[in-house]
Amino acid sequence: MAKLKNDTLIRALLRQPTAYTPVWIMRQAGRYLPEYNATRARAGSFLSLAKNPDLATEVTLQPLARFRLDAAIVFSDILTVPDAMGLGLGFVEGEGPRFARPLREERQIRDLTVPDPDRQLRYVLDTVGQVRKALAGSVPLIGFSGSPFTLACYMVEGGASAEFRLIKTLLYSRPDLLHHLLEINSRAVIAYLNAQIESGAQAVMVFDTWGGTLGAAEYREFSLAYMQRVLEGVKREHDGERVPAILFTKGGAAWLEAIAASGCDAVGLDWTADLGMARSLIGQRVALQGNLDPAVLLAGPEATRKGAAAVLAAFGRGSGHVFNLGHGVSQHTAPESVAALVETVHELSPAYH
Amino acid sequence: MAKLKNDTLIRALLRQPTAYTPVWIMRQAGRYLPEYNATRARAGSFLSLAKNPDLATEVTLQPLARFRLDAAIVFSDILTVPDAMGLGLGFVEGEGPRFARPLREERQIRDLTVPDPDRQLRYVLDTVGQVRKALAGSVPLIGFSGSPFTLACYMVEGGASAEFRLIKTLLYSRPDLLHHLLEINSRAVIAYLNAQIESGAQAVMVFDTWGGTLGAAEYREFSLAYMQRVLEGVKREHDGERVPAILFTKGGAAWLEAIAASGCDAVGLDWTADLGMARSLIGQRVALQGNLDPAVLLAGPEATRKGAAAVLAAFGRGSGHVFNLGHGVSQHTAPESVAALVETVHELSPAYH
Repeated sequence: MAKLKNDTLIRALLRQPTAYTPVWIMRQAGRYLPEYNATRARAGSFLSLAKNPDLATEVTLQPLARFRLDAAIVFSDILTVPDAMGLGLGFVEGEGPRFARPLREERQIRDLTVPDPDRQLRYVLDTVGQVRKALAGSVPLIGFSGSPFTLACYMVEGGASAEFRLIKTLLYSRPDLLHHLLEINSRAVIAYLNAQIESGAQAVMVFDTWGGTLGAAEYREFSLAYMQRVLEGVKREHDGERVPAILFTKGGAAWLEAIAASGCDAVGLDWTADLGMARSLIGQRVALQGNLDPAVLLAGPEATRKGAAAVLAAFGRGSGHVFNLGHGVSQHTAPESVAALVETVHELSPAYH
Repeated sequence: MAKLKNDTLIRALLRQPTAYTPVWIMRQAGRYLPEYNATRARAGSFLSLAKNPDLATEVTLQPLARFRLDAAIVFSDILTVPDAMGLGLGFVEGEGPRFARPLREERQIRDLTVPDPDRQLRYVLDTVGQVRKALAGSVPLIGFSGSPFTLACYMVEGGASAEFRLIKTLLYSRPDLLHHLLEINSRAVIAYLNAQIESGAQAVMVFDTWGGTLGAAEYREFSLAYMQRVLEGVKREHDGERVPAILFTKGGAAWLEAIAASGCDAVGLDWTADLGMARSLIGQRVALQGNLDPAVLLAGPEATRKGAAAVLAAFGRGSGHVFNLGHGVSQHTAPESVAALVETVHELSPAYH
């Protein structure tokens, strides 16, 4: 495969010197882009888009055609793994994901097996391979997975949840059973990420969307411990190149030292984290990715420029920073705000390097 | 008014020695209690219950008849203040609060005035007075208010919100206008809390439900700064007694040092905060209130006992801890779990004092 022409992201994730701060955006291929909505309409639904490698490749590349982003991230969903386990993923308009067969009985959890990515998640691996080829080394491709605990939340709740009553009741009344589920999920995530790496992903990110809803001790036991296991099982070098691993726990700003000790190369920060404080706390050990509030972009290009400048200043001089939002870009964002963000980072960041 | 027989809560909030750890529960007068639901049914609606001092007094006292709680908290809603400002509070079943006249125009914000609590929030003050009299000094009575920023969120969004698009767009595009609104809200909260203190509240708590959705710098500028102003304006002594002030920011676990420096006597912690770490960080300056995950109670009395014991152990030996949940008790909680919680704290905590 083609060598990287722009390896700024990889270097920043490994805390090596770079000429500027690389930038990519969580959910950069998404509903704020008219061209994405057009492709999605052609696909018929989110899921048929994600499961069609040609169309998924097309939307993965769309934001790169518009903005000078320093990375691509494979277009997919974090729930592909439980779908491959047989839970039956669907999407309800306006409500998000919904499993047809959520885990409600002990027997269902005991019967789960680790899917074979080559067979059961072929469409993701094909997308990774096609995107990598299409990028032709222009920028690196990021692969990803949901964290074992975040997958368990959806698998038990059956979809998005406000109070997490079912997963938490399981956690507090049958911790042994939840540990069993997390063990299966961890092995599934390792196999899935390694298959993405073998198919062409040059960095990987673990999204722990719901670990931040746990108490501090429960986070360490039920989410962080399994992400640590994932990091131990995932290839960190492939094809002679280091494959950096990013760990992102939404709502994890109070637990940064524990997260940084997990073995990851970089910690993703949501917008509530104080980036300067985070750097002084863990910046000697890991790179930091983040963390502009996605809501800033809703206020338009001028507010976005100001916000982006403040994030760069908060990190300060030196390497080890990947610019990103603190969460996925909102569907209500004007593409002009995203353009202003990417331009500002490229314009102002060289002064910090 | 009667002197306090059980002043354990007040002493713990002031970090004075106590014989055991006092315990009360956020939303302790609430829907998990059948007697509450019966009174509410008689009242017709949540709002007519909150606006009727006789019935509000009745539900305030209900949990104290069942459990050996160390404090009462006046039954009311955090949105009484904007309601008194003329925004027209209502509740939509299953959706929470909704204002008939949310703030959508600059003119509406400019026209706001600080309500006179004696006149416009008389029903709350009457409830405070009646509860204080009925308690006859058995335990202290806590008064409360929403924080200036949290009130602003509801006033601008018009109700609960998932993304806070309107308030954040205002914050990032018209910070001057939001500052004006927060200034008004701060003066209103000060007048409201002082009126509650004069009517009989022996401690006050400021609920910052939504400050935790802000970035670190924005939290300090738009939420914490105004709570600090509230703390400066609120009476801290009345009738010859200290009136401790508790500040609670949900999602504020990463900002504890700044919160502790606000001038409050105690910091409320949600369940994501590491209580032991919080104590070593700020426990020399302020008392800590919290922080069991309310979801533990859903798993039943046994899990609740274990969870309560773990919270006591996490704080460790010494004074300055008020036991509470990390958020309001869920309506799906069995009263038996609450009983187990209160018993466990009274049974195990003397060993830590």
